[in-house]
Amino acid sequence: MTPIVDALREALGGDADAVLEPARIAQRPSSYWDARPMQAAALARPRSTEEVSRVLAVCHARNQAVVTHGGLTGCVEGAVVEADAVVLSLERMNRIEEVDPIGRTATVQAGVVLQTLQETAREHGLLFPVDLGARGSCTVGGNVATNAGGISVIRYGMTRQRVLGLEAVLADGTVISSMNRMLKNNAGYDVKQLFIGSEGTLGVVTRVVVRLEEAPVSRNTALVAMADFGKAAALLKRLQQALGGQLSAYEVMWGDYFREVTEPGWHRAPVDRGHAYYVVLDVEGANPEADTEQFLAAMGKASEDGLVEEVVIPRSEAERSALWAIRENFQALYQRKPVFLYDVSLTIRDMEAYVADVQARLKRRWPASRCDVLGHIGDGNLHFFVHPGVDGDLARQHEESDEDVYAPLGHIGGSISAEHGIGTEKRHHLGISRSSAEIELMRMLKRSLDPKNLLNPGKVI
Amino acid sequence: MTPIVDALREALGGDADAVLEPARIAQRPSSYWDARPMQAAALARPRSTEEVSRVLAVCHARNQAVVTHGGLTGCVEGAVVEADAVVLSLERMNRIEEVDPIGRTATVQAGVVLQTLQETAREHGLLFPVDLGARGSCTVGGNVATNAGGISVIRYGMTRQRVLGLEAVLADGTVISSMNRMLKNNAGYDVKQLFIGSEGTLGVVTRVVVRLEEAPVSRNTALVAMADFGKAAALLKRLQQALGGQLSAYEVMWGDYFREVTEPGWHRAPVDRGHAYYVVLDVEGANPEADTEQFLAAMGKASEDGLVEEVVIPRSEAERSALWAIRENFQALYQRKPVFLYDVSLTIRDMEAYVADVQARLKRRWPASRCDVLGHIGDGNLHFFVHPGVDGDLARQHEESDEDVYAPLGHIGGSISAEHGIGTEKRHHLGISRSSAEIELMRMLKRSLDPKNLLNPGKVI
Repeated sequence: MTPIVDALREALGGDADAVLEPARIAQRPSSYWDARPMQAAALARPRSTEEVSRVLAVCHARNQAVVTHGGLTGCVEGAVVEADAVVLSLERMNRIEEVDPIGRTATVQAGVVLQTLQETAREHGLLFPVDLGARGSCTVGGNVATNAGGISVIRYGMTRQRVLGLEAVLADGTVISSMNRMLKNNAGYDVKQLFIGSEGTLGVVTRVVVRLEEAPVSRNTALVAMADFGKAAALLKRLQQALGGQLSAYEVMWGDYFREVTEPGWHRAPVDRGHAYYVVLDVEGANPEADTEQFLAAMGKASEDGLVEEVVIPRSEAERSALWAIRENFQALYQRKPVFLYDVSLTIRDMEAYVADVQARLKRRWPASRCDVLGHIGDGNLHFFVHPGVDGDLARQHEESDEDVYAPLGHIGGSISAEHGIGTEKRHHLGISRSSAEIELMRMLKRSLDPKNLLNPGKVI
Repeated sequence: MTPIVDALREALGGDADAVLEPARIAQRPSSYWDARPMQAAALARPRSTEEVSRVLAVCHARNQAVVTHGGLTGCVEGAVVEADAVVLSLERMNRIEEVDPIGRTATVQAGVVLQTLQETAREHGLLFPVDLGARGSCTVGGNVATNAGGISVIRYGMTRQRVLGLEAVLADGTVISSMNRMLKNNAGYDVKQLFIGSEGTLGVVTRVVVRLEEAPVSRNTALVAMADFGKAAALLKRLQQALGGQLSAYEVMWGDYFREVTEPGWHRAPVDRGHAYYVVLDVEGANPEADTEQFLAAMGKASEDGLVEEVVIPRSEAERSALWAIRENFQALYQRKPVFLYDVSLTIRDMEAYVADVQARLKRRWPASRCDVLGHIGDGNLHFFVHPGVDGDLARQHEESDEDVYAPLGHIGGSISAEHGIGTEKRHHLGISRSSAEIELMRMLKRSLDPKNLLNPGKVI
């Protein structure tokens, strides 16, 4: 049999850059998080769905494992490559094919960078509301494959809610084209759902039709300090009642997190650093004057009613960016190594007790440990940054930390993954959030769609 | 083998009403649309997921077909029963188990009537926004099984977007419990999606966790007359830009439809009956005074700019109901029989030409035919009421009408079902909207989840 690089080159035609061999692959880092050289048997760079189909057909005929790559910023080791696997990179499928301003849709290839789509939508007076820290490097295909969340889910939903249609290629090269552009389409099973959030294990997403929104023209932001968690939850509810769905971000920082990222040398704290909770929030609408008036009235009422201790409202875009940087730019938390990052979900009513429980477990295990907490609480989503505070075997510490974070989730119906997915990192914990019947159903889907287990093997289930 | 009625009674215990035999079943009408006595081998009325599981296990062991029933108001013959099939009715699983006002979720059994859930949500100051004409009889389980749409999709999405978690029973009785309550949960494949919109062919939905919204406190309504379709589309876009997502219904009636339902003896026409298009629209928000001011400003601007010919704004709830009745209560269209009802979707930009094409085809076929049109145009959804206007074989006429409505959809990427589903009625047209690869993938799912083809056999695919 010809070597895989040659077979793929033959399938993709004369283009010298269409398939990279191991030496050229090694010039790339493994991922955003791992600077070590990438190792793979070949890296294919198709330009079209048809070419993706040919790559997969070649691999299928050879029982060759394939790992699909988007922006490589995922947090759960979902794109890790074994050295004998083929990487299928969608980096050359980066075209925005169409924006329909009346139907409010965009049709894009999977390799389009999220920020590029956001900016293109803006040029049409529209909004693509999926938004997350990695916006400058992650791809729309990766967002779809991981059902990405981010900071606007509270208003606009996860990536799944944005996907009207998609095109995917199955393990054997079969093209499933479901490029629906309508909000309503009940013509049989909605097969596109299979590919959203399945992390490249059931098919390769090559093109997507996404739903856009009218771009908001007003924006009001605040940083708020609070005395207890109940008030953070109450203000959220209050604003959602008072502002008619205009609340588009509500990000809660536990006090220790805020103090850590506002230590000298890091962000400037625009309020006292001794409060129990801090929230950065955005409200966006269509009528600047009226929206600001309603926003200020709602915040004023919240102050009067004793919900908030301090409020800062930025007077410029620079001030606004500085407030958001406290939430988004948390390098201060990585001063001490190692840091284990978590992404869990649970209902708001369980949050305060759950966080206290996790922190107590970690303190019992490691008295000098830190556990800084950040939450998209309206989505039921918390992130933890756990630092053991003591030397030890890294893998062992990670396992122990996992145990403390995940163990109390099961009985409250929480999830070990809110928005990051499962990848390889959380695979062995899936049983905490899913019953054996659910996992068996997932395995059945995997066996049915990818019987040879060639697509991103070893991930998710 | 014991007769099926006895076997089911044994499985469900001593309750005399748990299983009905054919004589009692025949006391019920076949459906909302068909008054003939229902015929079935047995009708099981389980009270819990566990009992549903027992019913399905008994049927599975006997290779017995099962048709699940909700409110029986579906439009595509999706709940039709062969006389030797077992009906599984969820009518006794009608409990609202919990409303969480902070997490904004409701946990309900599948047999809860939609309107009951709407009213219960209201009592908590919340909104369950799925809304459709059959609200008083259709069930939440039926809404989930058919991915119901309705009049609020433009703002709140289809039923699929409302479902956070669900419990379903597979053909062999296996219970899949995925009762997630969080907006974010990426713990493996989102298996609940399989059961939403699959019309009872892949599993029986028994319980659901739905997402609620804060109830709006302001509402503004208008009836608008327009000179051409472009203006109907332009006003839609204008209002979505100006009102920051508060537009919650935008229902377009083609002129002939409006004239027909406002004939003497039917609805009173509050505007001239000679316009080309009419729209009923709702705008809902959280700040009555400011919302009304913005609404009136937007409508005034639309008048100034020549988008609208006439506008009626109701001054009372009675006037509002009368406007909505023109849209919702279309019995006038059923004066002449037969009437074939359609539910298709396509992008707004294709609508005007598509409707003209369909109407021209019908006129060529039947010069005295009528084709009245109604559209949730913001969702890409049109409904047709086709009356041939000539005597003939009913089945043949229906087929010919189908041909005229569906044939032009294929090449514009439209769908033969926007919100009604496929059932048996549209099954043979599925290939117009779905490729053979998509249909083969659907079949593979059906074979994998229900290898004996026992769940609602003959429906969808």
